[in-house]
Amino acid sequence: MTGSPVGDFLRELHRRVAEDRSGDVATYIPGLAKANLDWFGIALVTADGQVYEVGDSAQEFTIQSISKPFVYGMALEDNTRAEVLRKVGVEPTGDVFNAISLEAGSGRPRNPMINAGAIATTGMIAGKSPAGRLKRILETFSLYAGRTLEIDEDIYQSENETGHRNRAIGHLLRNFDIVEGDPTPIVDLYFKQCSISVTCRDLALMAATLANRGVNPVTGKQAIRGEYVESVLSVMASSGMYDYAGEWIYRVGMPAKSGVAGGIIAVLPGQLGLGIFSPPLDTRGNSVRGIQVCDELSRHFNLHQFHPPHSNSSVVRLKFTVADVSSSRQRSNADTQTLRESGPAIQVWQLQGNLVFSTVEVVVRHIIASSEGMQFAIVDFKHALSLNEAGSRLFLQLLELLAAAGRTLLFTHAARVPALRRYLRQKLGDRFEALFRVFEENDLALEWCENRLLKSPIDDEPTDTVDAGSYGLFEGLNPHEIKLLTGVMQRVSFRRGQVVVEFGAEARELFFIAAGSASVTVTLAGGTQKRLATFSSGMSFGEMALLDGAPRSAVVTADTALVCDMLPLADFRRLGREHPRIEILLLQNIALGLCQKLRKLNREISVFDY
Amino acid sequence: MTGSPVGDFLRELHRRVAEDRSGDVATYIPGLAKANLDWFGIALVTADGQVYEVGDSAQEFTIQSISKPFVYGMALEDNTRAEVLRKVGVEPTGDVFNAISLEAGSGRPRNPMINAGAIATTGMIAGKSPAGRLKRILETFSLYAGRTLEIDEDIYQSENETGHRNRAIGHLLRNFDIVEGDPTPIVDLYFKQCSISVTCRDLALMAATLANRGVNPVTGKQAIRGEYVESVLSVMASSGMYDYAGEWIYRVGMPAKSGVAGGIIAVLPGQLGLGIFSPPLDTRGNSVRGIQVCDELSRHFNLHQFHPPHSNSSVVRLKFTVADVSSSRQRSNADTQTLRESGPAIQVWQLQGNLVFSTVEVVVRHIIASSEGMQFAIVDFKHALSLNEAGSRLFLQLLELLAAAGRTLLFTHAARVPALRRYLRQKLGDRFEALFRVFEENDLALEWCENRLLKSPIDDEPTDTVDAGSYGLFEGLNPHEIKLLTGVMQRVSFRRGQVVVEFGAEARELFFIAAGSASVTVTLAGGTQKRLATFSSGMSFGEMALLDGAPRSAVVTADTALVCDMLPLADFRRLGREHPRIEILLLQNIALGLCQKLRKLNREISVFDY
Repeated sequence: MTGSPVGDFLRELHRRVAEDRSGDVATYIPGLAKANLDWFGIALVTADGQVYEVGDSAQEFTIQSISKPFVYGMALEDNTRAEVLRKVGVEPTGDVFNAISLEAGSGRPRNPMINAGAIATTGMIAGKSPAGRLKRILETFSLYAGRTLEIDEDIYQSENETGHRNRAIGHLLRNFDIVEGDPTPIVDLYFKQCSISVTCRDLALMAATLANRGVNPVTGKQAIRGEYVESVLSVMASSGMYDYAGEWIYRVGMPAKSGVAGGIIAVLPGQLGLGIFSPPLDTRGNSVRGIQVCDELSRHFNLHQFHPPHSNSSVVRLKFTVADVSSSRQRSNADTQTLRESGPAIQVWQLQGNLVFSTVEVVVRHIIASSEGMQFAIVDFKHALSLNEAGSRLFLQLLELLAAAGRTLLFTHAARVPALRRYLRQKLGDRFEALFRVFEENDLALEWCENRLLKSPIDDEPTDTVDAGSYGLFEGLNPHEIKLLTGVMQRVSFRRGQVVVEFGAEARELFFIAAGSASVTVTLAGGTQKRLATFSSGMSFGEMALLDGAPRSAVVTADTALVCDMLPLADFRRLGREHPRIEILLLQNIALGLCQKLRKLNREISVFDY
Repeated sequence: MTGSPVGDFLRELHRRVAEDRSGDVATYIPGLAKANLDWFGIALVTADGQVYEVGDSAQEFTIQSISKPFVYGMALEDNTRAEVLRKVGVEPTGDVFNAISLEAGSGRPRNPMINAGAIATTGMIAGKSPAGRLKRILETFSLYAGRTLEIDEDIYQSENETGHRNRAIGHLLRNFDIVEGDPTPIVDLYFKQCSISVTCRDLALMAATLANRGVNPVTGKQAIRGEYVESVLSVMASSGMYDYAGEWIYRVGMPAKSGVAGGIIAVLPGQLGLGIFSPPLDTRGNSVRGIQVCDELSRHFNLHQFHPPHSNSSVVRLKFTVADVSSSRQRSNADTQTLRESGPAIQVWQLQGNLVFSTVEVVVRHIIASSEGMQFAIVDFKHALSLNEAGSRLFLQLLELLAAAGRTLLFTHAARVPALRRYLRQKLGDRFEALFRVFEENDLALEWCENRLLKSPIDDEPTDTVDAGSYGLFEGLNPHEIKLLTGVMQRVSFRRGQVVVEFGAEARELFFIAAGSASVTVTLAGGTQKRLATFSSGMSFGEMALLDGAPRSAVVTADTALVCDMLPLADFRRLGREHPRIEILLLQNIALGLCQKLRKLNREISVFDY
């Protein structure tokens, strides 16, 4: 089966908009006047790198003014922000595309999207020689586009021969010391950056790179450091479309930039990039079809930046306590009872969605409001989609508040939000190791909290060995019957970490733990290990495969030095035939244990309701 | 325990910024010159209605130019968009705050944030009389603020006495027919709207209402229709801060508006609203402390609109097939085997996050790419946070594509994304009932698909009654033993929908289904029902409570007319004492059934990994 709703829509849109034959190609650069009025390409690239293209998407043309925001980003990388702002402002002019618009007095160009500002920006690119600066520009643009870009020499010659207005601007900038030294090579470099040859597919990839925080979504390569993307998009938003900027924000609502050769880029941060190419321009110097395509795409796909998703869901996906769900460590009946009565002492807060200021603020507020009776709060990032610095800062403040009040904050699945560890390490310094408590999953964090709540011995090597009379499965048997069983059981020892039961092995025995503890784990689809249960002395494992004869479905590993009594299946069967009461009691106890496990799982299902 | 990271930060920020004593109060309206230079309040309101306030947040002052975007929103409600755009543009001027800025020729004010545009906008408010128009403005503003707002008569008089420039503008607009009829009452209404008395808490609530799609997050009342919020925010973004607009977008990155009395609002769509009040103004007419607070808050809390969350997570939270997880209808071994071998025939796609163009595009692309061998695709919205129209449109297109290829698309948890049903009903018309297949949860959708895949009889009243020899739990018993058991069993019938086992009841019997089917359900924390299992003829239920003597932990209800054989616990025990083989075999079979359930749950846990 094939088909693509997005591709279908773009094809239909292309066909419809192609019929608009208004506008004229730019003629002030003779090379541009040769453009075919019918050339028309649309490309859309998602932030995960899917490329849609329609029409003349492989037709090359020169990037022209669309180079300006990218070079502005480079200037921010190559200089301090203060230096850049001192030489070029960020105010829209409301003027037409070729206005000079220098600030009275300082001569500072109003913004980097007008030619004067762009030439000043080009003058700030780092490099030892004009050739070095050009190399840096071409290499950076190539990173954005994901292929090697080159200059269209014919257009460059044409620009060079007719660019008197831009030369005048260069000298004006030199006059105001915005440009230092001879302005000629800078204006020449500007002509070259404008003459870089691209397709609208390239433009869409460049835009998608800005949408994706500076990383080309197809190649995975960084074209600009993420911290500068915000500034590049800001100047595009306020000044990218000349004196059409206000209407553009109003109608289309995406930062954008147009070029006189007929290209347009538009960026929806975090989502996608657009590149459109159609040479006929309107009186403001923007591509007629390009504007129409952006306008329709914005409305059709709800791309306006002020059309945020309207979420009714809380950032807190789930909150539960140890009374609802406890760790998979099997406890004595008394301990189990204690945990079920400890409700708010251990709380798990499972978050979802993007953790930014406004969502983490809700979490922090709710956790503080629930601190009555709390000893441990576990924040679970398993379903979090992202965490930014503001969110990290709020979690730090929560951590400090809880610590000051004698509570412990723990985190699980923190690998999903790597920014948190980095931020806390930086801010907590020496206190990081002591205060940043993190566990891979809730189960382990719950167990850690439970052990402290119950004051259980933890991680200790076993000292006492229980005798067979204490085995839970022997409940109800008399000493004679127990003796009969122990007579056929074999005592085996395992080192810490040793595998006791292999996955897929044939089930030949039932295990009783005399000393130590062991955990049952399965490997999930993604390759990670998930613990299903941990057993300690007096408990049994291995009964399921024994009952249904299926191969072992999980791995059992010794958590400590482990001593087990193994009851071979064959002996169990034989004893059962001779002593039905033994078999009945054992089966009853096994079935009872299975019931307890099922009830625990059913309770968890009610809580998690996946 | 008390404390608030956000409140703490605002207090610290307030203390620090209060030290800045630069700027002067506006003097051109004499009433404003009386303001206390030290007044300084900050309020922040989240989109879920949490209010933070610091300093003089209850001090009243006049709203002045901050009224402009709200009145613009009203003009959009009261007129067609074309009418509004014909009379007032949306281009920033780059001019100072009191420039007149009419377009040459048409006399159209460049945008609604300058006085000329604002007066033209005020002239478009609906109402039969000046008093009626004022009433509408006050009522709307009161909805935004969540309390009854009134006019500061002193300031109004002061504006009225000194507002010659605005009267001149009124006549200029009349000259160009932008304003119709006598401009005097319109300019008077404009003076009144500027004289509405607010606190910075009111402003923050008004801003939060814009952040929350026009609904006041505290009162829940709609102040402006959601469809116009985007336009209001757009004019604020391009023109709200006069000739500081570009730098504002660059540094603060939130749509904003300032007023000459010292107020500022800023809006982070979907997240929060800010209101700040401090009378000293800079030379551009913006509150000095207000700008500083917005600047610091934006950086501290990452509020810049071009700083989108960076999500590494796929919108597809989980994909599984019927081979991984089947419905909770218990099947025969043969059917179970068939389902486990049908892999891609039934696929469940569980989505997460905000479903907008760029995320749904990914889903649609992946589902189409997985259509080989697919008969049914279930799209699960349980973890979706939102769905917009673009997302709905893509799902419609997917539905049509799959239907054309003979596949069936189903939706679960669609109540979380109500827009989908509305959209599909509108677009599918007569075909809606046939094509929009929706189930409350995956379990029911899976069962529906499984029944079709297995060609099972569905929803039929039972016709055949199986005899006791076919009961699964009797496997291995000889006819004599079965006869002994059936001798003590009691046959009972239930109507469809009748409760067979009550929650919390004492467990006295084990049920064997002779004809019909029954479902086990629990009530989740939220009050919804969750099905744990459905049993049909030959199967048993009620064994867990029987084994551990606990009260019934779930409800069992007859899905059809139901005929059961009940085995009383007491008789079972007595028979067991006399015939150990019966007890052993029954216990074994029960334990085997429990094993199967545990294995199924463990498999599901591996898939869902909650």
